[in-house]
Amino acid sequence: MPVNLTAPDPASLLPVAGLRLGIASAGIKKPGRRDITLIELAAGTQVAGVFTQNRFCAAPVTLCRQHLTQGNIRALVINTGNANAGTGEEGLARARRTCEAVAQLMGCAAENVLPFSTGVILEPLPVDKILSALPAAQADLASNHWSEAAHAIMTTDIVAKGASRQVSVGGRTVTVTGIAKGSGMIHPNMATMLGYVATDAAIAPALMQQLVKEVADVSFNCVTVDGDTSTNDSFILIATGQAGNAEIADATGADYAALKAALSEVAIKLAQAMARDGEGATKFMTIAVEDGRDRAECKQIAYAIARSPLVKTAFFASDPNLGRILAAIGYAGVADLDVNALQVYLGDVLVAENGGRAASYTEAQGAAVMQEAEITVRVVLNRGSVNATVWTCDFSFDYVKINAEYRT
Amino acid sequence: MPVNLTAPDPASLLPVAGLRLGIASAGIKKPGRRDITLIELAAGTQVAGVFTQNRFCAAPVTLCRQHLTQGNIRALVINTGNANAGTGEEGLARARRTCEAVAQLMGCAAENVLPFSTGVILEPLPVDKILSALPAAQADLASNHWSEAAHAIMTTDIVAKGASRQVSVGGRTVTVTGIAKGSGMIHPNMATMLGYVATDAAIAPALMQQLVKEVADVSFNCVTVDGDTSTNDSFILIATGQAGNAEIADATGADYAALKAALSEVAIKLAQAMARDGEGATKFMTIAVEDGRDRAECKQIAYAIARSPLVKTAFFASDPNLGRILAAIGYAGVADLDVNALQVYLGDVLVAENGGRAASYTEAQGAAVMQEAEITVRVVLNRGSVNATVWTCDFSFDYVKINAEYRT
Repeated sequence: MPVNLTAPDPASLLPVAGLRLGIASAGIKKPGRRDITLIELAAGTQVAGVFTQNRFCAAPVTLCRQHLTQGNIRALVINTGNANAGTGEEGLARARRTCEAVAQLMGCAAENVLPFSTGVILEPLPVDKILSALPAAQADLASNHWSEAAHAIMTTDIVAKGASRQVSVGGRTVTVTGIAKGSGMIHPNMATMLGYVATDAAIAPALMQQLVKEVADVSFNCVTVDGDTSTNDSFILIATGQAGNAEIADATGADYAALKAALSEVAIKLAQAMARDGEGATKFMTIAVEDGRDRAECKQIAYAIARSPLVKTAFFASDPNLGRILAAIGYAGVADLDVNALQVYLGDVLVAENGGRAASYTEAQGAAVMQEAEITVRVVLNRGSVNATVWTCDFSFDYVKINAEYRT
Repeated sequence: MPVNLTAPDPASLLPVAGLRLGIASAGIKKPGRRDITLIELAAGTQVAGVFTQNRFCAAPVTLCRQHLTQGNIRALVINTGNANAGTGEEGLARARRTCEAVAQLMGCAAENVLPFSTGVILEPLPVDKILSALPAAQADLASNHWSEAAHAIMTTDIVAKGASRQVSVGGRTVTVTGIAKGSGMIHPNMATMLGYVATDAAIAPALMQQLVKEVADVSFNCVTVDGDTSTNDSFILIATGQAGNAEIADATGADYAALKAALSEVAIKLAQAMARDGEGATKFMTIAVEDGRDRAECKQIAYAIARSPLVKTAFFASDPNLGRILAAIGYAGVADLDVNALQVYLGDVLVAENGGRAASYTEAQGAAVMQEAEITVRVVLNRGSVNATVWTCDFSFDYVKINAEYRT
């Protein structure tokens, strides 16, 4: 069951001026399932994205990268039930046909459309089903359909994921609204499966790519469920420019900082929601590695702990078998790490120091923290001043069950 | 249940002249459990080892490394039930006390003893229990106690692991016998948890370290169960020199090759046994990556597949959800990999080529292979002439159960 996570109240997901969403059912995996989402963007909207580093990236990811280079994006189309990954040239052709069909409906060029797919890999995309559902998705377009879209992009997710914030930028209130899906095959570069965060703020096109990278680095790139990097991960930042603020043109100014903070807050909430709703999750874990030399080594250690099946099964069992955390720190690959100089905390409890169990530590202390549904593991390296945090979940019978039965 | 694995017939584990084994019960984790193994080596025996790369290495691993530098090893002492890892200075002191007690019994110096521990991490070694069991272990010393030792070093292993071979070296028959334990927290550098392979062959001391590395590289360093590298992994090669062969002094000669082949055969059998007996295993998987540029990239891809929870749960379900294999190949980290140039086979069935599903592939073919208890995944990279193979097992409910309940 998802850990302290409920679907957002539909009214809490604020419309973003210049953006409308429409949902329809193509019956790709299951008849009647609302599995197609169309997003329409007003002229002048800026779009940037970061995508999976997987070499077997999906056909739609390849097309997204191409289409973003020309910069005039007017529509996004998202299907669930099929990833269109591991589908070769034919997969690219089918993704192109989807873009062409959307373009024809929306009165733009195929290059103005970004396609997204999520679902099973290595199976042909049922493009005809998608094409026949597009007119219904267009007819459904509305600015207040964020919640419906958050539901329509789910796969093994149990809970729909969305969030909104408002912030003052250049004297105007700007809105940030985002949705995401992701529950398994979650590991960074990118970690989202799919995430869309939109704002009506006006921002210079030249800053969009920097902004989307900076936001991803503190949010979607800090979460893991199972260590499997998806073929389809995409995080898209949309700025419609309709809030009336003076265009943000300086990445060092206060407006950029304010907007980035609001975007990051929404993106972090969505990223954490993926771990809370991680396949089979019963516990939400925050792994904080502090006082390292650089962010890379902090992340390396945090991820070693966060993806260890042994650590994750111990948390599932609420068993403070904390030696497994030490083992993960030790094999994280930081070659000159002095294990005698670091401390490990479970919640507020000091567990290990001087290379071994802390003298003050008792099993009862560890057992008490392990009863919580949200637990922080803190590793203090004492060799620098940089921190990194990773969110994950435990590893339960249900993870095996969900993934053993995924295609049935 | 272990996959096609039964404990070796005790009579099949051949004595190695110059080596005796004794077992006793110290009741470290469970009363009455035979958890102490003592191995006595004749004067003149050569010993070399490779050990975990984990920075949180166990106290006995630290002592082994120290004691091996002086080269005159006369005894090994192994306990299960406690890893003596994450135990700091006090852990080192307790491992030293164990060596001193063995030395006193055997009439040698503490530096002539190698200590090994396996079990739970971060708990103090109950050294007094060990010391009081040592005389019984000494009284039990016999050259034909290999099978008893194979049982005594087990932790979560279901089946004891041992093998023997005989080979002609320099006109003499030499014997190779090995035992190992390992079922979880299995991932290379080293992968064994504990492995001991002994021969009566005579070999120059200068060649021992090269030989143990070469044997480990084709055996224990090719297996993974859960991607967790243990704090205690140790693989020890023992050569008593009592077979009467002319001392092997040339690493390029036929005698070296013959002995290495026999040692490797035994070590590979032991390493495969760990995956067959991997925690919760229902399937034994061989991941062969072929025609790569170098062994490193082949191993990188093989391990990405072998440790993917999504691949492993699909095999548990006998579900040919083979897109997960493509995803793992894609995220393995080989930056310039051309996914359109490679082929993926499941057993003899061509699954993927040209970046997508093979035209000839049918779901029925994949489903048929998935019914087997032993399955080979073959990835042909077509960019070089180097191969690497990794052995692993699937990921079942029982893996979660075993590791959630490990300390209960």
